[in-house]
Amino acid sequence: MSELLFYLDIFGIVVFAFSGALMAGRYQLDPFGVVVLASVTAIGGGTIRDVILQTQVFWVAKPYYLYVILATSLLTIMLIRQPKLIPKRFLLIADALGLALFAVLGTQKSLYLGAPVPVAIVLGTITGVAGGMIRDVLCNVIPLILRQEIYALAAMLGGCLYILLDWLGWGENQAIIASMSAALCLRLAAIYWRVSLPAFDIPEQDNKR
Amino acid sequence: MSELLFYLDIFGIVVFAFSGALMAGRYQLDPFGVVVLASVTAIGGGTIRDVILQTQVFWVAKPYYLYVILATSLLTIMLIRQPKLIPKRFLLIADALGLALFAVLGTQKSLYLGAPVPVAIVLGTITGVAGGMIRDVLCNVIPLILRQEIYALAAMLGGCLYILLDWLGWGENQAIIASMSAALCLRLAAIYWRVSLPAFDIPEQDNKR
Amino acid sequence: MSELLFYLDIFGIVVFAFSGALMAGRYQLDPFGVVVLASVTAIGGGTIRDVILQTQVFWVAKPYYLYVILATSLLTIMLIRQPKLIPKRFLLIADALGLALFAVLGTQKSLYLGAPVPVAIVLGTITGVAGGMIRDVLCNVIPLILRQEIYALAAMLGGCLYILLDWLGWGENQAIIASMSAALCLRLAAIYWRVSLPAFDIPEQDNKR
Repeated sequence: MSELLFYLDIFGIVVFAFSGALMAGRYQLDPFGVVVLASVTAIGGGTIRDVILQTQVFWVAKPYYLYVILATSLLTIMLIRQPKLIPKRFLLIADALGLALFAVLGTQKSLYLGAPVPVAIVLGTITGVAGGMIRDVLCNVIPLILRQEIYALAAMLGGCLYILLDWLGWGENQAIIASMSAALCLRLAAIYWRVSLPAFDIPEQDNKR
Repeated sequence: MSELLFYLDIFGIVVFAFSGALMAGRYQLDPFGVVVLASVTAIGGGTIRDVILQTQVFWVAKPYYLYVILATSLLTIMLIRQPKLIPKRFLLIADALGLALFAVLGTQKSLYLGAPVPVAIVLGTITGVAGGMIRDVLCNVIPLILRQEIYALAAMLGGCLYILLDWLGWGENQAIIASMSAALCLRLAAIYWRVSLPAFDIPEQDNKR
Repeated sequence: MSELLFYLDIFGIVVFAFSGALMAGRYQLDPFGVVVLASVTAIGGGTIRDVILQTQVFWVAKPYYLYVILATSLLTIMLIRQPKLIPKRFLLIADALGLALFAVLGTQKSLYLGAPVPVAIVLGTITGVAGGMIRDVLCNVIPLILRQEIYALAAMLGGCLYILLDWLGWGENQAIIASMSAALCLRLAAIYWRVSLPAFDIPEQDNKR
């Protein structure tokens, strides 16, 4: 793993743990509940990816991920007591950043481990979205991914772009940075302008079951 | 895998993807949310089965499953705009069909990979019910399996019957067709006549915790 | 596996299956729904642990676990028809017992299979809490672990204490009994005196997203 990948990976963990911890704050969980929700959000996607790929789960091999999550949770608890220190938009940007980072890194790892291209894209998307999905399900909230702002689409486009650039012969680091940036911009733009894809709406009268 | 198994398998994927896509329509998801929910429903059960059996996850080995789901989702979105084309009862029949197909195919695959008989029955049931369960949990709905119409029982009886017929020396194809038909008929009958098993009801006053 | 471990393990399965069956009764599920919910609660945590550790899932290797769950579910259905036979506090004690048992046994198994210490603690906690978590999510209830009474903390402390005692050179059986007792007492005390850790509360005005 290159140094860049290593730092991006840690950064993604921090950012998702932070989003899980903030969600825990919203539900007034105790500090231990905060750590649990932060962990699930940060490692859920990658765990499912590794289990499906039948490779060793990343945090079993490298327990420092657990320390990073613990530190992030505790820092969030301490910092958030003075919530003015955190700009409002920061949470949304952080969440989008985690999505973009993990989608591309997940695609890259899956390809590296020999998954076929469509499988790598699906596993990248899972890496990006599953942690947040479990977080939302545990809190009894309909997951972000199932609401109407472009979310999983951004993750999938990031993975596709990475594969394209890699195939075009870009260097790995350049391809990763470019595709993450693209996914991030798409998601941020969707949040900012509230862009959604058109809904798939079945008229009520045909919807009885 | 025999040709019959292959086609039944694909048919089960189509049918469950269709049910997931219809559910997505009910919640007015965007096209990408439709694909996500269709995928989860169609491959959720088999993925859990393969992970527990520690064999390669079926859609990682054969990515064409992903194309089938994608095509089914897009077709559902396009066809459902003229919902009169779809008879009302079709959804219920399709759902029951997927349950019956996957329960028997899951049992068969587990046995084939060396699982003991009771484990094969449990894994067959999981293959049949887990995809729909995840679909319902993501949509914040109490899963079908936990409501009162015969559901998991149909799946389990399908698996048991397959094992019995196999043990009696029937040919594989005949055993599969017969046990699927039995599970399907049981589930359809339960839907049609609203048959339920008697509820396990704890009187309210003893239910405080 | 020593004889003590074997019996504690079975006892944990019984106790969690019982809690799942009681929950099913609360939702008036049919007998088959009771078995499904009891199974998920009893084997959910250990299944996730084994999948992450990439060892054979325990109930695939030893199907008698499935018979134990089946028997517990049926007994619960029959006994609960005369609910006076069951003291009110029994459910709470049983639940805490399952948590304490599985957290320590999960930590012990993970260490035995070579997991690093922090990973073993996390996997022990998962073994103790995940089954109940899935049970609650399926019933559309916010999981116990995310509410405010000390829950996951008790599980984690049990695992930590086991590791400490093991490192201090205690015999395995003594270390297991002592750490289970500590986790159990902590959880029971938290229930009895309604002790919670202080909530992580983000003031409402900073909570908009």
